[in-house]
Amino acid sequence: MEYETPLFFHVMGYAASADRDVVDMVSGNPDWGSPDALAEGLHEYADLGGADFQYPPSEGLRELREEIAARRNVDVEQVVVTNGGGEANYLAMARALELDAGDEFVLTDPVYPYYPGKTRMLGATPRYVAADETGQLDPEDVRETASDDTAAIVVNTPNNPTGAVYGEETMRELVAVAEEYDALLVSDEVYDHFDFSGRFTSALSFDSDHRVVTGAVSKSLAITGFRVGYAIFPEYLVENAKARHMLVNVAGPRPSQYAVLQALRNTPPEYYEDNRHLLQERIETFTAALDEAGAEYTTPDGAFYVMARFDGYPGTLENVERFIDEAGVAGMPGEAFGESRREWLRFALVSPRVEEAAQRLADYLG
Amino acid sequence: MEYETPLFFHVMGYAASADRDVVDMVSGNPDWGSPDALAEGLHEYADLGGADFQYPPSEGLRELREEIAARRNVDVEQVVVTNGGGEANYLAMARALELDAGDEFVLTDPVYPYYPGKTRMLGATPRYVAADETGQLDPEDVRETASDDTAAIVVNTPNNPTGAVYGEETMRELVAVAEEYDALLVSDEVYDHFDFSGRFTSALSFDSDHRVVTGAVSKSLAITGFRVGYAIFPEYLVENAKARHMLVNVAGPRPSQYAVLQALRNTPPEYYEDNRHLLQERIETFTAALDEAGAEYTTPDGAFYVMARFDGYPGTLENVERFIDEAGVAGMPGEAFGESRREWLRFALVSPRVEEAAQRLADYLG
Repeated sequence: MEYETPLFFHVMGYAASADRDVVDMVSGNPDWGSPDALAEGLHEYADLGGADFQYPPSEGLRELREEIAARRNVDVEQVVVTNGGGEANYLAMARALELDAGDEFVLTDPVYPYYPGKTRMLGATPRYVAADETGQLDPEDVRETASDDTAAIVVNTPNNPTGAVYGEETMRELVAVAEEYDALLVSDEVYDHFDFSGRFTSALSFDSDHRVVTGAVSKSLAITGFRVGYAIFPEYLVENAKARHMLVNVAGPRPSQYAVLQALRNTPPEYYEDNRHLLQERIETFTAALDEAGAEYTTPDGAFYVMARFDGYPGTLENVERFIDEAGVAGMPGEAFGESRREWLRFALVSPRVEEAAQRLADYLG
Repeated sequence: MEYETPLFFHVMGYAASADRDVVDMVSGNPDWGSPDALAEGLHEYADLGGADFQYPPSEGLRELREEIAARRNVDVEQVVVTNGGGEANYLAMARALELDAGDEFVLTDPVYPYYPGKTRMLGATPRYVAADETGQLDPEDVRETASDDTAAIVVNTPNNPTGAVYGEETMRELVAVAEEYDALLVSDEVYDHFDFSGRFTSALSFDSDHRVVTGAVSKSLAITGFRVGYAIFPEYLVENAKARHMLVNVAGPRPSQYAVLQALRNTPPEYYEDNRHLLQERIETFTAALDEAGAEYTTPDGAFYVMARFDGYPGTLENVERFIDEAGVAGMPGEAFGESRREWLRFALVSPRVEEAAQRLADYLG
């Protein structure tokens, strides 16, 4: 079996070993720090020892599932706590294939590269629907691409890499298309705390047995390394999803789950608001500097990525490495995200040096 | 797709909700406490924050991989740190199937129930080889059961549930059988620190491209809830195993990996020796009391389980629940481990109350 390793780790490694100072805008690793309650929770856990260091329930600590269920307004029995959002998407996609209702996944273009990676690993076939140039998805296009062979439609809102936030009508129609083809809508909402438009609508807003919502606290609590995510399944799907989770991972990490529970309970809303504002400022700063550099770019409605296009520098891995070595700025090649953004690069706004980065790009290109 | 949830969690839940005091001998959750360096490592990590709270390398923290490689005497590039031993076995078994050299797994009977669970989940077919009544495996029987359809032979030494430790000749021959059929020997050595016989021989002792060794610190550091395990692959298999690990889990939990690294570095050998001695004492105490109760039982050479047989009480889930309710002792039904131990129950020696448990059983049966 052949499937590609997503490029993230390669580019991060290249940037880290560069022989000069590099502004790292590659990964989705937040740089704005975790809430105090998280470290406090981890300290508290470290002193428990004994039985508290042993397996949590396979589907996650009960109180953590309850906390997530309350926040997402679902029944606690629908919630499976996973080893990060990555496992949540894997479980949802594997579950869709097990329904024997098809072996194709409808994905978007641009696409988060892990989705086609998981598709190939699971032996399924990807079918791509192009987003428009603002990143919005027309449900009619999805309807045309979907078929009786569709096992799942996998979307991400707010979107990585485009920054698009799908509105209520789009989400309603995506659920409807999944129902029409007896498929699952897998809605990856890991950036739900980073909506600058006020238009974010969860797939959970629409009552249906044909949608699975995945999420994580990796971004919202700035802890991508803790591996705490979740999937919310319709009730008839949850038992087998739990079984796969158990057979693959037995359970998720209890130190992380314990600390996250404390953080969710004890972090004030201002923490999340402040980080949103920080990102909005960075978007303004970075795009203003891109304007001066004469580059084309996207202005995200959500998540924390800006895509930019520089004449004569298509979004290849080669050009990304050139920008690292010669401009001191590391982004991701657009070609990693599908056909439609081959000319573009993606920059993650996870550095306080976004203005400097844009200035470096302008100087290098100027 | 149909596959069963292993019974462990069911029985543990039943025992926990019983309306009386129950000695819990169900799970493989050590009760003897983790080394101090582990909690110290977790405290240290909690104060790092920032970049240290983000994704570790997908294959695990470099220094942890080096520590494991040094202990197992392999090249660090062969080591993938996983979300516990469970994921390590999943990766190894999935990897074996991807080689397109067969779709059958040779398993032992008795068997650790997660292996047939993973087999079914992966769409493969199990073929069972009976161990003898002491739990030893005759490689000739494995050779007869294996065929060109064999993708992997999955063994566990020291063994759960039998307590058998396979000697050097057995391991050498198991590697040879895997080579003869172009299959992988997957040797799960998670109990390698609990060998009372001095005969434990790792599959790594034999140079071969046909063996994968899995392990974890879950048992040796008494932290089943931390989810730190590893798989050691031949070099030609490691890249795709890493890719699957990344596509399923992205990475393992960094707080756990950091704390485990500190624990491995700073825990004296006495910690491991003391726990072995504690278990040897428990084995003597428990089996002596079983003698008095007139029960048949196994005396383990390794791991921490005793199997026992009580006339008139075959190892069904129903009898396990009866023993919980009426005797106040919780074990696992032998039928969970395959055909050959249907008459037996398995007791995990993870309670200081093993003598009391055996006495309760004697009183109930007497």
